[in-house]
Amino acid sequence: MKDVDRGLPLEDMKNFSLKELLGMAIKAEIGAANFYSSLAENMDIEALRDKIEFLAGEERKHEAFLRKLYAQMFPGEEVVFPKEHIGPELKPVAEKLKEIEDVIDLYRWAMEAEKIANEFYLKLEDMVEDDAKKRLMRSLADMESSHYFTLRADYELLLDWDMYSQMMHVGP
Amino acid sequence: MKDVDRGLPLEDMKNFSLKELLGMAIKAEIGAANFYSSLAENMDIEALRDKIEFLAGEERKHEAFLRKLYAQMFPGEEVVFPKEHIGPELKPVAEKLKEIEDVIDLYRWAMEAEKIANEFYLKLEDMVEDDAKKRLMRSLADMESSHYFTLRADYELLLDWDMYSQMMHVGP
Repeated sequence: MKDVDRGLPLEDMKNFSLKELLGMAIKAEIGAANFYSSLAENMDIEALRDKIEFLAGEERKHEAFLRKLYAQMFPGEEVVFPKEHIGPELKPVAEKLKEIEDVIDLYRWAMEAEKIANEFYLKLEDMVEDDAKKRLMRSLADMESSHYFTLRADYELLLDWDMYSQMMHVGP
Repeated sequence: MKDVDRGLPLEDMKNFSLKELLGMAIKAEIGAANFYSSLAENMDIEALRDKIEFLAGEERKHEAFLRKLYAQMFPGEEVVFPKEHIGPELKPVAEKLKEIEDVIDLYRWAMEAEKIANEFYLKLEDMVEDDAKKRLMRSLADMESSHYFTLRADYELLLDWDMYSQMMHVGP
C-alpha cells in the first residue's frame, strides 16, 4: 500500500471549475464504493464485513445523489471525470487478505480518504452559491465524518485483534 | 419532547462505581435501540428509515458487547440498572409521526444523546485500568461519534425537506 497516490492537494481545488470538482467527487465515490465492496469480499472477519458493506452502499448512494445534482446544474451534459483524484486513490482489493496487518493498513488509508472527503465537501460548500446546495455539501461532509469514525472504531480494535476476537466470542 | 429528562451530569460520574456506570451504559444502549426501532417504525420517510434501523442494530450490538464485558469483570453477577440515566432518556416513539417538525425534534434529541454517550465512554476510558478495556471504550466512543454524524447529515437535510425530497425523486 506504500505506493498509494495521495491525490489532489485540497488547496489546488481553486484551479478547477465546480463541474470538474463534481466530476472528481463522483469519481471518488465510485472508487470508494468499489474499494469497500472488494474489501468486504476479501476480508475473513465477519464482525467487520457488514459495516464495510454498509459503507459501500452509502458511497453508491452518494454517487447517485451527486449525479442528480450534476444533471440539475448541467442539464444534458455527460459527467466528465478529470484525471485528478480527491484524496488517496484506493484500488480495489484483488485477493484474500490473509494478514491482519494488511487489513489494518487498508483501514488506515480508508480513514485518510474519508477525512479528506469530509474536507473536500466542506470546501465545496464554500464554492456553491445557493443555500440548498450548501446544505447538501454539509450533509455529505457529515456522512464522510461518520464513515471516518465507523472505521476508526474498528481500527482501534484491529490493533489488538486477539483481545477483541476473544471478547466477541465469549458466550453466551 | 420538551419534558425529556436530561440525565446524569457527566461530572457526577465520579460518585458511581464502575459497575454502576456499566449498568447505566447497558441501560442507555437498550433505551437507544428501542428508541431507534420505534422511530423507524413510526416514520414515513423511507430514505431515512434504513439508517435508523442500522443505528438500532448497532446499539443492540453495543448492549451485547457491554454485557460480555460486565460478565468478564463481575463474573456470575446480574446486571444492576441504576435509576440514573446517561444523557437524555429517549422514550420509544408511540405513534406515527405526521409532522416533519416532530421528526426534526427527535433527531435533535438523538444527536444530543449520541454526543453525551461519546463523552461518557471517553470518561469511562479514563476510569478503566487495563489497555484492552481502554481500547474498547475508545472504540465505543468513536461509534457514538459516527452515529452523531449520521444523524446530523440527515438532520441538515430535514431542515429543508422540500428541497431534499425533490432532489431524491428527480429522475433518471
